[in-house]
Amino acid sequence: MQDNRVVQVVEDLEQTLLQFIRKHRISHADYRLATDLIVESVKQGEESLLFDIFFEAEATDVGSAGSQASQAAIEGPFYIPGAPLLEKPYVMPQREDEAGEPMTFSGVVSDLHGNAVSGAVIDVWHADAAGLYSQIHPNIPEWNLRARFVTEADGSFTVETILPPPYEIPKDGPTGIVLNALGRHFFRPAHVHLKVSADGFEDLTSQLYFPGGEFLDNDVANAVRDGLMFDIEEDEDGVHAKYDFTLTTASPSS
Amino acid sequence: MQDNRVVQVVEDLEQTLLQFIRKHRISHADYRLATDLIVESVKQGEESLLFDIFFEAEATDVGSAGSQASQAAIEGPFYIPGAPLLEKPYVMPQREDEAGEPMTFSGVVSDLHGNAVSGAVIDVWHADAAGLYSQIHPNIPEWNLRARFVTEADGSFTVETILPPPYEIPKDGPTGIVLNALGRHFFRPAHVHLKVSADGFEDLTSQLYFPGGEFLDNDVANAVRDGLMFDIEEDEDGVHAKYDFTLTTASPSS
Repeated sequence: MQDNRVVQVVEDLEQTLLQFIRKHRISHADYRLATDLIVESVKQGEESLLFDIFFEAEATDVGSAGSQASQAAIEGPFYIPGAPLLEKPYVMPQREDEAGEPMTFSGVVSDLHGNAVSGAVIDVWHADAAGLYSQIHPNIPEWNLRARFVTEADGSFTVETILPPPYEIPKDGPTGIVLNALGRHFFRPAHVHLKVSADGFEDLTSQLYFPGGEFLDNDVANAVRDGLMFDIEEDEDGVHAKYDFTLTTASPSS
Repeated sequence: MQDNRVVQVVEDLEQTLLQFIRKHRISHADYRLATDLIVESVKQGEESLLFDIFFEAEATDVGSAGSQASQAAIEGPFYIPGAPLLEKPYVMPQREDEAGEPMTFSGVVSDLHGNAVSGAVIDVWHADAAGLYSQIHPNIPEWNLRARFVTEADGSFTVETILPPPYEIPKDGPTGIVLNALGRHFFRPAHVHLKVSADGFEDLTSQLYFPGGEFLDNDVANAVRDGLMFDIEEDEDGVHAKYDFTLTTASPSS
């Protein structure tokens, strides 16, 4: 079954890359080096990492352009559905001696008219103080720093956790070869991943950053956007990171 | 270690594809569909097939542009080094009852000045009458329709084999999904693969086609070129396919 848009896009991609090959005089050896890197990146378990660091954020922007909802962001490769639903007061699952500066994350979820969205589910996952994720990296308890919780009647939420650090993406595989060839570093700035969902509203996938943090201007994944910054306060209790979400009504088809 | 050309090419590829994403409003779902197809094509053993049918021939042209040697062509995915060296008279290894019209393949290998190149090694591989390759497809004797032989003192060679047919590339995997979406067929025109090598000369990889054959104008791999056509005669003994090769002197670094 043919779809006119698919044909148009793929044929233009074909022509665009054929022109690119001619423009840069890409030889068969150059071409094979590139396809071998792609093939190896998949075989070595990097899946689409090589593409994602370059292109995923741009495609996310396109999808959310013109939306009145809060800015969307890339999901990244480490999301796992089904995290534990917390009871109040909300505290992210963590080890007894979890390293890292204490942080509260709070905000309000509203609709486009500013009405509170109560019972919205916020699904949060972020790295530990070593830059590692539970269920992805070894020797971390299951669901550590992964949880879901719901907003109050006034749309608000507060959860206690720890401040995640900047961290490096895998650098020893084919993606690393490409980034090294470009002379780029491997760091992502510190961030918190989350999804917000509520009955009758479009799901929102976001990723929030800390103003003033390292690597905001040269994120290896190029995914930092102005609309994705926490409001930050810091006191003797630690960091207080705030962000308010706006959701759009779900279209009937979704 | 950085290489200026690599940086320039990869950065331009990044910008070209980011522009492409914006131009066609590629959403995250579109983007993920594309990367999933690429990841799946590797996981399902299609290696770089999805790229090769679109781009390998163009990169081969770039590499041989300006060369005074015979036109180069794509190697394709089915070459296996180390085929048996034939004794004269040259007959391609085949089954007792090998199906297909008998064919002789003959020609002369010369240098740029028209001098015969004797002792050049010609390494030939092609499909059987069912469009299948030994060591790739099951139930075919090892090295069937794969062999190497050397040119005479006058640069000439003649080998007996069978006429290969047009055949379809794999259509049940991710590459098939893309070609189906484009409304394209899966056929390659009938062809003979070969490599020519001789001391002091650049290696030549070629692939020769039969004038008047099916799918020459719409090869799924877009690899047919004017310079890659056999001269064909047909008589009661079968098809006589001729092609003369010109080799260029190897550069000192190669």
